[in-house]
Amino acid sequence: MRNERLMEEKVFKDPVHKYIYVQDQTIWDLINTKEFQRLRRIRQLGTSYLTFHGAEHSRFSHSLGVYEVTRKIISQFERSHYPDWPKEEKLLCLCAALLHDIGHGPFSHSIEQAFEMHHEDWTCRMIRGDSEVHSVLAGVSSDFPEKVADVICKTYAKPIVVSLVSSQLDADRMDYLLRDAYFTGVNYGTFDLDRILRVLRPHKGKIVVKESGMHAVEDYLMSRYQMYWQVYFHPVTRSSEIILRQIFRRAKQLYAEGHVFRFMPDPLPSLFEQKLTIEEYLLLDEAFIQTAFAQWTLERDRILSDLCGRFLNRKLYKYVPLEAEDVEILDLVRENLERSGLNPAYHMELDFPSDLPYDVYRPGESGEKMPILLLTEQEKCVEISHKSEIVRSISGIHKGQNQLYYPPDLLQKVLPQMDQEVRSFFARRG
Amino acid sequence: MRNERLMEEKVFKDPVHKYIYVQDQTIWDLINTKEFQRLRRIRQLGTSYLTFHGAEHSRFSHSLGVYEVTRKIISQFERSHYPDWPKEEKLLCLCAALLHDIGHGPFSHSIEQAFEMHHEDWTCRMIRGDSEVHSVLAGVSSDFPEKVADVICKTYAKPIVVSLVSSQLDADRMDYLLRDAYFTGVNYGTFDLDRILRVLRPHKGKIVVKESGMHAVEDYLMSRYQMYWQVYFHPVTRSSEIILRQIFRRAKQLYAEGHVFRFMPDPLPSLFEQKLTIEEYLLLDEAFIQTAFAQWTLERDRILSDLCGRFLNRKLYKYVPLEAEDVEILDLVRENLERSGLNPAYHMELDFPSDLPYDVYRPGESGEKMPILLLTEQEKCVEISHKSEIVRSISGIHKGQNQLYYPPDLLQKVLPQMDQEVRSFFARRG
Amino acid sequence: MRNERLMEEKVFKDPVHKYIYVQDQTIWDLINTKEFQRLRRIRQLGTSYLTFHGAEHSRFSHSLGVYEVTRKIISQFERSHYPDWPKEEKLLCLCAALLHDIGHGPFSHSIEQAFEMHHEDWTCRMIRGDSEVHSVLAGVSSDFPEKVADVICKTYAKPIVVSLVSSQLDADRMDYLLRDAYFTGVNYGTFDLDRILRVLRPHKGKIVVKESGMHAVEDYLMSRYQMYWQVYFHPVTRSSEIILRQIFRRAKQLYAEGHVFRFMPDPLPSLFEQKLTIEEYLLLDEAFIQTAFAQWTLERDRILSDLCGRFLNRKLYKYVPLEAEDVEILDLVRENLERSGLNPAYHMELDFPSDLPYDVYRPGESGEKMPILLLTEQEKCVEISHKSEIVRSISGIHKGQNQLYYPPDLLQKVLPQMDQEVRSFFARRG
Amino acid sequence: MRNERLMEEKVFKDPVHKYIYVQDQTIWDLINTKEFQRLRRIRQLGTSYLTFHGAEHSRFSHSLGVYEVTRKIISQFERSHYPDWPKEEKLLCLCAALLHDIGHGPFSHSIEQAFEMHHEDWTCRMIRGDSEVHSVLAGVSSDFPEKVADVICKTYAKPIVVSLVSSQLDADRMDYLLRDAYFTGVNYGTFDLDRILRVLRPHKGKIVVKESGMHAVEDYLMSRYQMYWQVYFHPVTRSSEIILRQIFRRAKQLYAEGHVFRFMPDPLPSLFEQKLTIEEYLLLDEAFIQTAFAQWTLERDRILSDLCGRFLNRKLYKYVPLEAEDVEILDLVRENLERSGLNPAYHMELDFPSDLPYDVYRPGESGEKMPILLLTEQEKCVEISHKSEIVRSISGIHKGQNQLYYPPDLLQKVLPQMDQEVRSFFARRG
Repeated sequence: MRNERLMEEKVFKDPVHKYIYVQDQTIWDLINTKEFQRLRRIRQLGTSYLTFHGAEHSRFSHSLGVYEVTRKIISQFERSHYPDWPKEEKLLCLCAALLHDIGHGPFSHSIEQAFEMHHEDWTCRMIRGDSEVHSVLAGVSSDFPEKVADVICKTYAKPIVVSLVSSQLDADRMDYLLRDAYFTGVNYGTFDLDRILRVLRPHKGKIVVKESGMHAVEDYLMSRYQMYWQVYFHPVTRSSEIILRQIFRRAKQLYAEGHVFRFMPDPLPSLFEQKLTIEEYLLLDEAFIQTAFAQWTLERDRILSDLCGRFLNRKLYKYVPLEAEDVEILDLVRENLERSGLNPAYHMELDFPSDLPYDVYRPGESGEKMPILLLTEQEKCVEISHKSEIVRSISGIHKGQNQLYYPPDLLQKVLPQMDQEVRSFFARRG
Repeated sequence: MRNERLMEEKVFKDPVHKYIYVQDQTIWDLINTKEFQRLRRIRQLGTSYLTFHGAEHSRFSHSLGVYEVTRKIISQFERSHYPDWPKEEKLLCLCAALLHDIGHGPFSHSIEQAFEMHHEDWTCRMIRGDSEVHSVLAGVSSDFPEKVADVICKTYAKPIVVSLVSSQLDADRMDYLLRDAYFTGVNYGTFDLDRILRVLRPHKGKIVVKESGMHAVEDYLMSRYQMYWQVYFHPVTRSSEIILRQIFRRAKQLYAEGHVFRFMPDPLPSLFEQKLTIEEYLLLDEAFIQTAFAQWTLERDRILSDLCGRFLNRKLYKYVPLEAEDVEILDLVRENLERSGLNPAYHMELDFPSDLPYDVYRPGESGEKMPILLLTEQEKCVEISHKSEIVRSISGIHKGQNQLYYPPDLLQKVLPQMDQEVRSFFARRG
Repeated sequence: MRNERLMEEKVFKDPVHKYIYVQDQTIWDLINTKEFQRLRRIRQLGTSYLTFHGAEHSRFSHSLGVYEVTRKIISQFERSHYPDWPKEEKLLCLCAALLHDIGHGPFSHSIEQAFEMHHEDWTCRMIRGDSEVHSVLAGVSSDFPEKVADVICKTYAKPIVVSLVSSQLDADRMDYLLRDAYFTGVNYGTFDLDRILRVLRPHKGKIVVKESGMHAVEDYLMSRYQMYWQVYFHPVTRSSEIILRQIFRRAKQLYAEGHVFRFMPDPLPSLFEQKLTIEEYLLLDEAFIQTAFAQWTLERDRILSDLCGRFLNRKLYKYVPLEAEDVEILDLVRENLERSGLNPAYHMELDFPSDLPYDVYRPGESGEKMPILLLTEQEKCVEISHKSEIVRSISGIHKGQNQLYYPPDLLQKVLPQMDQEVRSFFARRG
Repeated sequence: MRNERLMEEKVFKDPVHKYIYVQDQTIWDLINTKEFQRLRRIRQLGTSYLTFHGAEHSRFSHSLGVYEVTRKIISQFERSHYPDWPKEEKLLCLCAALLHDIGHGPFSHSIEQAFEMHHEDWTCRMIRGDSEVHSVLAGVSSDFPEKVADVICKTYAKPIVVSLVSSQLDADRMDYLLRDAYFTGVNYGTFDLDRILRVLRPHKGKIVVKESGMHAVEDYLMSRYQMYWQVYFHPVTRSSEIILRQIFRRAKQLYAEGHVFRFMPDPLPSLFEQKLTIEEYLLLDEAFIQTAFAQWTLERDRILSDLCGRFLNRKLYKYVPLEAEDVEILDLVRENLERSGLNPAYHMELDFPSDLPYDVYRPGESGEKMPILLLTEQEKCVEISHKSEIVRSISGIHKGQNQLYYPPDLLQKVLPQMDQEVRSFFARRG
């Protein structure tokens, strides 16, 4: 295995961790690949910048942050000489931490839904395929790219390595909570990272938390809970994601119908035909998508141009909350919209929070994320919600309201002609 | 004059000022114009994100910040009932503060140099011309757009109004120093804004500083000084701006020579022909420019595709410091480069810090920025450098090194064939 | 009613609120009384500085902070012109906020237990009695001192005035959570004060919270919960308070027995005889108490001198957790201690967290604190735990372990001679 | 040499450095001595709490902070394997850093002036003499106490060890600037400690700064400059120190005259007779001094009781600035005061800033502090003011105004009877 120590440590100024320290030639080379540099052009929080104007930070900065948190955890483990820590896996952990997000596309969650892509697949495709990242990793040893892909896909043989990068208390979440809080400016995500790092312990193939650190973990989970409801699930962000999905859907449909677009450079055709190569995927960043939208505001198709204008100029949809008993009214709304010359396929959209990409901590669920374990003074492992009423309470909360989103300006014009029932339905405020 | 007070104050979460408060319908409507929303797609610090990965913040957020600082200053003046403050100018100040940057193009300083544009002109063109911003302003009163343009162009009759938005201690700088420090993560720009706001006084048509606030102003100027050398003039940022300028120059030249580009959508032709309309200018954001660069990495012209790849993948130029006695060597370098098959018009570039877009405080200079005046206990106004040795010392510093930038990878290949004199010149480290 | 506006606003630099603004002559005069200045010599967190070395902040700074939070709330109410806010009560609220703690004695909770004093009584005694504070208040109007006392005693006719200073979401707690977090350095108490201030509403004689502010209140209550367990109930602090109480108890006992102390200046005799005058009470600050302890380390009584040395040099007691079934063992421990020459009245002490001076939010309880009410969009008031699962969960937690504290050094020496049962009891770690 | 590594690292929560890490048994034992615990009862900033109410922090917390900064520097040196760093001196450096202030008395600068004491002498006396600290140090090796004293007295053979604890860029200053800024709440002291630590290098027996770190050092010196003028030399603090000195002077004089004090417990007599033992010195903390002052407010001597009341209740002296030409007037003022029944020895006092206990950076001066050296790329050492205009300018500033302090209330009463010249002198405002 080949990895040189850098002659002089490289340093990135980072607002969240103050500095990010790079000590290995391999890490330095990975950061300088074009696949990793591309992450500068993908925002960490997708459309959230339309809700929180500070949230323009990139997946590049987050990926460096995950690397740095991982580096700090491992360096704490090494300093304390914990026998359960497999020292030989350090570089593997650092590489997986750094690269775990390189497959993310522009406005990931929306584009993935529209085109049935998965960023995890793209991450592994880049690591295994013909890429600069692959070359750097293969320089360490011939099986190293495969090992990194295994860790990211959670199939690596040693779960302790996987759990550093991906678990309920992993470097990924620790960085994004702090980072998203910093750049949005909300107060919530600010748990005590130093304290949490101090109470982590490698223990029989897992990473656990010293019982005396329970309150620090409660605080972290509480931050997470607050960030979800205040930031990640913010209705304005939901609305802009709905617009995004509709744009993708409309454009895809037009393309399928043979519509001639005034703007359709590579790699758009391959995207619509779902046959992107790695080289094409690298061109597909948020600058490109926004440029396409800006050009499409001039398209003849009125639905597409309207949607693109909404997204760019932040004329978003508003929403009405939907109660369980509202099922029947939806058909009536559809009918009324159609009758008024609007298109129910685009001018209304249901949003179910259960589709949400982020999860609240729920230890009982079937998800693949490893739960948080406390290590008692008697050296037993106990899942945290058995000890903490706070965690139990957060885990149990199944919040989230179904909502119907609609274009308020277009609706306004036709509302007077609609049925009384529909009119009073829209009179509820979101 | 028509301006309604909003029924309920609107609030933006902002990491720098915690919250930004909007109380006037006019301000709210201006924010929602497409010209103002476009500022989301222009970074505040141009290419600095290639040096400081956090610096992705937009001119949208900065413009809101300038508005908020102005609002705070005025509200302080009103609360203290200072007789020298013209209360009737409040809305005008707020609008000018909010809009002063709407004319900025993508990567402003570089694109302006390449295409002889001026963002101030575009700002006034948008305010006076056929735009959503104009409509909103004209709704206040028919001469209101002109007044706003006058304030921004510094031709408005009351200098106190101009100086709020544009002077050596204006809302613009106070916001950008704090904001740029926050998003880059450097410690320097963090002067005490609250303290400065408390010592400002309207006085005989000017805004002055109570003498007891001198130390707070020293601290602000020191922050500014540090931000220039640590952030704004950082050599990596200089290098990326050089690449940018070269891309613009090369593309312009190719266009003039009739080269057929594989990617040349509107408004690129109008940009090259310097005849952009407002509508076209709105399409010209940083997403568009980055997309053009990404597409041009596939152009046949090797100089253009190489430069675009460098910019996107951060393979920047390095530099050698230039001493006064190096004048002769430059011709030799040019000759050697040419002989080696490189192109001195693109593969080397001189950088003179005197071209820098930011200025250090220099009270004696001919610049149009109003200097900082202290108001003594005897109610006299004294320019601050007469009282403060610190300010005197900062003002006197004419720092900055001339530098020669070059592509290290390309040079490396041909260096062995070059003259000994040139070889030892490049052996100096930057 | 007489109250002059200060010609020029006075300002205190404060680390928590940045600045504290004084605008009324009455407030300024109150701050300069000797009763208020005395609060500089009483720590906000009693003995917590022995656990968190930063926690040396005084009740003086906290009292200014409570005043400032109250001022901010009222100024927000006035700016929004809420009709339910009784504007004429502003000065009363500010005075009550500023003075609510002036009756606190040194190491309040411990000294009150030992000598059956109540700081609320002393606060009212000072406000009503012959004091500088009384003179200043009487200068406003003759019944003003009585009104201030009424607000602090919660007997004032308008509950909205009382609830600003004393309720589950009052200015008192908002300041102390932020302040104690700042000075101890823990991360927890940092909820978003600005956000909470923005969602408070005066409503039909109460102060309520706009429903959309529920998450901000959850965050505040969660901070409070964390502060209790991490700071206020910290076992080291409990231990030092036990030592304190024992010192007071021992000295009181010796005094009653006619012991001649080498150090017994005024007002100690009056304290022991429970007949302190206001003038004497003012002398009774933490400097005085610490000096007495330092002098008493030289007393002949070995129990007293040992306890005083422990307190000063931080040689505290350790603890064993007590389970329900341990009731019988306590008698055995007492017996064993006595047999070994120790004194069970001083060399062991039970600590029940139910005696704790701070309360977790429990809406159902009989306490006099007004609960937190949410104001729904339909203008109904709902107690927050009906809407928030988080609050419900925190309220339900009856945590806290009974503990037996003991001097580890003294016990160590005699442990070998003790009964096996007692030995294994002490082998449990705290 | 004996020093055990602690089984488990001990940790102190610290607001400035987040955590302070103790890894050596020796350090742990030193912290638990009564001499070190006494530092909890000595404020770091003396009387500054009367100006900045947050400034109640103790020398205990500062001493831990100096230790922690030293630990971080050394751990950086060890991690980078710098050959010029003498590894064997680590424990010595840490002990000297921790203990360098243990000799400080209450309100150090004032009491030292009044009683001709020097805290450095007391520090060495405690380290060498019969003390708990001595025992712990002697446990390392018999000559270890002497070595620690040598480092603190700057007589240790290796200057690199001395300069860590005491130089123009030492751990002492780095901690106190950050700490004093934190607790006072001023913005100024917040330079980038991490950055400075990263640019320090051991080099040929000295600690130097990599040239590229010059801006960080400029920022540190600028912080220092601002802290001096904003905090350390604040006129209110100067005034309270004058009162302090006068109290000490008056009490000493009365004692010499045989006055019978109502409060004169040990160790006051020894203090007045300048024959304190270590044991007595330990009793002499700020609680004791404040208690004496409180008791002395009841003394018959009116000058003493008045001064003590002023100090406790913050009724301080005000000042008039003194120009060079004012020399003659002082005699007239003295005469007038005497004539009016006041006492010029106590009711006026000149304050010369040249007596100030803190120094601005002045490389040319004869002081014993090692200057700040930059290490150029050519491995040469250059004193920083040769490279930095900012530093040059700060160093050259000889600011500071002579001032005459006086009791405004007492003066007010007699002013009408004074000479016109004196009356107009006092009409100048401070």
